Amino acid sequence: MKLTIKQNKLMEHLNYVIKGISSKNLIPILNCIKFELTDEGLYLMSTDNEIAIKTFLDKKDIETIDQVGEVVVSGRYIYDIIRKLPNEIINIEEVVDSKLLIYTSSSSFHLNCNNASEFPNLDLEDNKNPIYISKKGFKNIISQTSFATSSQETRPVLTGINFKISGNKLECTATDSYRLAKKTITLDETLKEDINIIIPTKNLLELTRLLGEDDNLEIHIFSNKVIFKFDTIVMMSRLINGTYPDTSKLIPTEFALEMKTNLSHFYDSIDRASLLTNEADKNTIKLESKGTEVIVSSNIPEIGNVEEKLEMEKNNDSDIKIAFSSKYMMEALKSFDSEEISLLFNGEIKPIIVKNTNSDDLIQLILPIRTY
Amino acid sequence: MKLTIKQNKLMEHLNYVIKGISSKNLIPILNCIKFELTDEGLYLMSTDNEIAIKTFLDKKDIETIDQVGEVVVSGRYIYDIIRKLPNEIINIEEVVDSKLLIYTSSSSFHLNCNNASEFPNLDLEDNKNPIYISKKGFKNIISQTSFATSSQETRPVLTGINFKISGNKLECTATDSYRLAKKTITLDETLKEDINIIIPTKNLLELTRLLGEDDNLEIHIFSNKVIFKFDTIVMMSRLINGTYPDTSKLIPTEFALEMKTNLSHFYDSIDRASLLTNEADKNTIKLESKGTEVIVSSNIPEIGNVEEKLEMEKNNDSDIKIAFSSKYMMEALKSFDSEEISLLFNGEIKPIIVKNTNSDDLIQLILPIRTY
Repeated sequence: MKLTIKQNKLMEHLNYVIKGISSKNLIPILNCIKFELTDEGLYLMSTDNEIAIKTFLDKKDIETIDQVGEVVVSGRYIYDIIRKLPNEIINIEEVVDSKLLIYTSSSSFHLNCNNASEFPNLDLEDNKNPIYISKKGFKNIISQTSFATSSQETRPVLTGINFKISGNKLECTATDSYRLAKKTITLDETLKEDINIIIPTKNLLELTRLLGEDDNLEIHIFSNKVIFKFDTIVMMSRLINGTYPDTSKLIPTEFALEMKTNLSHFYDSIDRASLLTNEADKNTIKLESKGTEVIVSSNIPEIGNVEEKLEMEKNNDSDIKIAFSSKYMMEALKSFDSEEISLLFNGEIKPIIVKNTNSDDLIQLILPIRTY
Repeated sequence: MKLTIKQNKLMEHLNYVIKGISSKNLIPILNCIKFELTDEGLYLMSTDNEIAIKTFLDKKDIETIDQVGEVVVSGRYIYDIIRKLPNEIINIEEVVDSKLLIYTSSSSFHLNCNNASEFPNLDLEDNKNPIYISKKGFKNIISQTSFATSSQETRPVLTGINFKISGNKLECTATDSYRLAKKTITLDETLKEDINIIIPTKNLLELTRLLGEDDNLEIHIFSNKVIFKFDTIVMMSRLINGTYPDTSKLIPTEFALEMKTNLSHFYDSIDRASLLTNEADKNTIKLESKGTEVIVSSNIPEIGNVEEKLEMEKNNDSDIKIAFSSKYMMEALKSFDSEEISLLFNGEIKPIIVKNTNSDDLIQLILPIRTY
């Protein structure tokens, strides 16, 4: 393998593949980046067995392709070396004894290569029926649901986001069994077969870091993996085995009380009330309505207490007295960008629903905490 | 105590005193802020016994002073509460049972107070002969020397910066016994008595975070403490007991070889060469001159090696071959802002000196590592 390339072109693509390397991996080959130079251009690949990332630099972005071939080198080292070189033309060349020589007029690095044949064989083929979603829309889905994912490995299925497609309706659900986030969007096409998969949340978050704002994301779903294609990048994630809990019956369709409130005022009140809560106590705060006046309150006995007053519009005369986690409520509220939201109640021991007043596209459910 | 005050005015000053509270303190009163309201204005104070910070809000910055008095409350809580309140007029009032009531039209907090008499009595009086240094100049001194301080508590004197004044000459020295940084400045006045004190580096760094760019800093030195005065703030730091090592004989006055080099090119070369060093090996890199060509090199056997080529101007024909820590060299180089610097050598086992070509105001000394 032998080529010359501008530093900034190579760096752009190393920035993509470096995200496929987990810093904790004990298997040396999984800390590597594979360079595959063909007459058409340069492929860079990385994988930690959880995800794989592949990117392509077209020959027009390469100064000279002098000899095709492939090498596998430590990802962290090649990344840092290229990053610290000036934005000049860099010579990269495989030399004797499985070494990669990287040089400019003043700098010269030799890096030991790994055996290219030991690098995992990545099957990143398309399937026939990809799904198309705008990158922006996809990033929204992930940011509006991922926080509700469980971080506990005891129930692996809850560490992912459930993607369920039926016809042209995509439902994405995340839950840690104390709260649930559900986003529904309508796809441009109607799928013939239903889909029901669980994608690890941390891989989806890694993906959103790679996604720009323009154009669509192409999603190829297989039985044990999912492949995302965009720009010059192909990213593969494994799926989580297992059956996602059926959450459809958890979300009530009728409510005893609906209250409308200004989103940012409500958020700020919860935020201040949360100052006098603590993690050990599940960040419990209380909400109590008396007519249109709502009091949010909390206390830590040895420190002090707080009361926040708000006005809310109600759909009937009933009142509510309920306790919940301020942390979960704030994370749920952050997923909305409207001026007004609705809070829906069925009594003090039933789930609280937060949603946009006139839409069910995004639903946040929070279980109350029994204190009264 | 009872007053009303704009949120942003109080917040500005809480931002100062919060820095006097160490998060690790187990003594509750040392996690507190003392409010002392007089007819002239409001004093805020904090201390963790290592440092003390006092700031003053003049009555013109306070809406109403309704009742003078003093209270002591948890610093972290009052800070977060005021920070999260909107920029409105806030009512603050001591109520029965040693509670502090903080309220606006919609929020109301009660915070338990500590006993004001238990708060340490801070003696922050002036002495007669303060020293005046521009804030900018003082911040330069600290940033150009503090990194060379030892972080090891085994030799406490080396965890501070030595301030030595003789006549109108102030010498500031920091060393961890492997490298040394020394900055000399000329004061506006001549002092009658010599001064030789050690100020804890971490307190000096805390101070520089409070310092703006304009005006002077007033320094009052006592036998066991130092007091800094600026703007509305008085900050006290304890001194480190003990005798600072006499470093005057460590810095040679004659050199076998002087090399001049472009600062940023040399820094970049060291930075790249440091990629193939590791901490366990003291980040050792080698520098070797052959005529005007200088090679900087390093290697990690299992990873690879690097060679960086530079041209340097020399004052004679002798050559040098020396090894040193790339980390120490980079930290030393960062303290200069000139285009060119001088590297001074007396052979491979003698200290390396880095300084501006035509000035001895700032001297960085690095001990070589014996490898040849």
